[in-house]
Amino acid sequence: MFNKVCIIGCGLIGSSIARAIKKQNLSKKIVSSNRSDLVNKKVVELKLVDDSSSDTKKMVEESDLIIIATPLSSYEEVILKIKNSLKSGSILTDVGSVKESVIDLVEKNVPKNVSWISSHPIAGTEESGPEAGFSELFENRWCILTPSKKTIDKDIKILETFWKKIGSKVDIMNAKQHDYILTITSHIPHLIAYNIVNTTLNAQDKKESDIVKYSAGGLRDFTRIAASNHIMWRDVFIQNKKNTSNMIDNFISNLEDLKKAIENEDGKRLEEIFIKTKKIRKEIVKAGQDVSKPDFGRK
Amino acid sequence: MFNKVCIIGCGLIGSSIARAIKKQNLSKKIVSSNRSDLVNKKVVELKLVDDSSSDTKKMVEESDLIIIATPLSSYEEVILKIKNSLKSGSILTDVGSVKESVIDLVEKNVPKNVSWISSHPIAGTEESGPEAGFSELFENRWCILTPSKKTIDKDIKILETFWKKIGSKVDIMNAKQHDYILTITSHIPHLIAYNIVNTTLNAQDKKESDIVKYSAGGLRDFTRIAASNHIMWRDVFIQNKKNTSNMIDNFISNLEDLKKAIENEDGKRLEEIFIKTKKIRKEIVKAGQDVSKPDFGRK
Repeated sequence: MFNKVCIIGCGLIGSSIARAIKKQNLSKKIVSSNRSDLVNKKVVELKLVDDSSSDTKKMVEESDLIIIATPLSSYEEVILKIKNSLKSGSILTDVGSVKESVIDLVEKNVPKNVSWISSHPIAGTEESGPEAGFSELFENRWCILTPSKKTIDKDIKILETFWKKIGSKVDIMNAKQHDYILTITSHIPHLIAYNIVNTTLNAQDKKESDIVKYSAGGLRDFTRIAASNHIMWRDVFIQNKKNTSNMIDNFISNLEDLKKAIENEDGKRLEEIFIKTKKIRKEIVKAGQDVSKPDFGRK
Repeated sequence: MFNKVCIIGCGLIGSSIARAIKKQNLSKKIVSSNRSDLVNKKVVELKLVDDSSSDTKKMVEESDLIIIATPLSSYEEVILKIKNSLKSGSILTDVGSVKESVIDLVEKNVPKNVSWISSHPIAGTEESGPEAGFSELFENRWCILTPSKKTIDKDIKILETFWKKIGSKVDIMNAKQHDYILTITSHIPHLIAYNIVNTTLNAQDKKESDIVKYSAGGLRDFTRIAASNHIMWRDVFIQNKKNTSNMIDNFISNLEDLKKAIENEDGKRLEEIFIKTKKIRKEIVKAGQDVSKPDFGRK
């Protein structure tokens, strides 16, 4: 499919893409660029890529597809480094969780003969780093493309085919819509998980071990989500701050309603809410976005 | 171990106890009592118990161990029904998630020749009903006993042995301490899960299917917790309203701090919090209260 693919940032997502490209045989050559020379050494040793170096400019040269898979806060540095080394006719994409805030930056800098089409594979685990990746990460997961108005249709098709070949289902939408939906389905759930674990730690005047011991009562599921990469999430919240902030306000207002119902012992109101939230679970399982096995009670 | 055990309420927990008793051969006879005659028929058909009837008074007679496994709001009705049928020297326990609010009710009504020792097995799944139970539910899970000051040590030992025989690890604490710790590790996580799913549903001006489609980004884990039994949780929050309400206040105050850090683009503060919350995850896995497999990214 390609002669050369360059992945900038071989963490969980980047290294999973490299593995999937190799497995599906989608490029003659795969290279990567990482800040840390330890990581550059490691990804070659693991045979995830053919070559890897901190010299991003050099790695990018002659690539047909360039994938930025670094934290959002590094995009400016990366774009400025690579903008003069991008091959004419190549496709530049990323895997970031926020879109609106990066569009301007990239469109302002990337030459017109390069197709910039942002991607967001909705996939991941709570682990980080090149060794945490696996080739099946994207299978049956959605990948959202947010092309700019100027992007050539042919290139959108190529990128769409690429994601499908590594197992994803592809949707196309605009950046604003993407950021709003992801605030709901991903950013706020993560922020709330961090906040509940933080509240737990602050509230615990006893020893921490009590929390650990009895965490199977519900808390452990939040600790799993709150173990995700802290740099990535720091950047997501800041880059998507308007949506995040609005949704926090909604969340607090709903929580205050629940508190009032509890204080008034208004069982009817609580039941109404709890029955409603139960319904959506069934639809998620039906849509194949989770398994029905009662994993919450896992041993 | 016993001649007759009576389980009042054969839902997920009650039916799992029945299965575990049969498997470990801990009683010559097991009976249950359920309000619904359909359930009474079902649990006999499934061979979970030897006999089952809505006549709770009759089922309780001659039992050595009586386990109340109904929602907290039904305790008063149950206690008043059975108080004159309890065998002298028998042990009465429950499996409720809140302790302080029920102590008075039970102690006031239960005759002195019956040992009342409250139990709370920290185990469950998001499913409900007699068919959702399984005999291994309690294996490697904690069970907290909150005996009253008057309880005879010998009977605490018997109940402790019972829970250990069906796989639990046992801890003993007072009701106040129990309710506080469980607020943190179980009640608030459930309330927050309900609230986030509810906020999601309210925020969604687009079609609901977008939430379902992209739920793998974090939301699906909350929907799982928020699919738990709504009657049980309605009762828990109301019966533990003081602790719940205080902890909601702490949660909101912490969330407002996070919001401020996001709005000020204070990446350093966000990182501090996110690193702290990551640490507790490792301890939970180390303590065997969850598996380290990155299940968040499950397919």
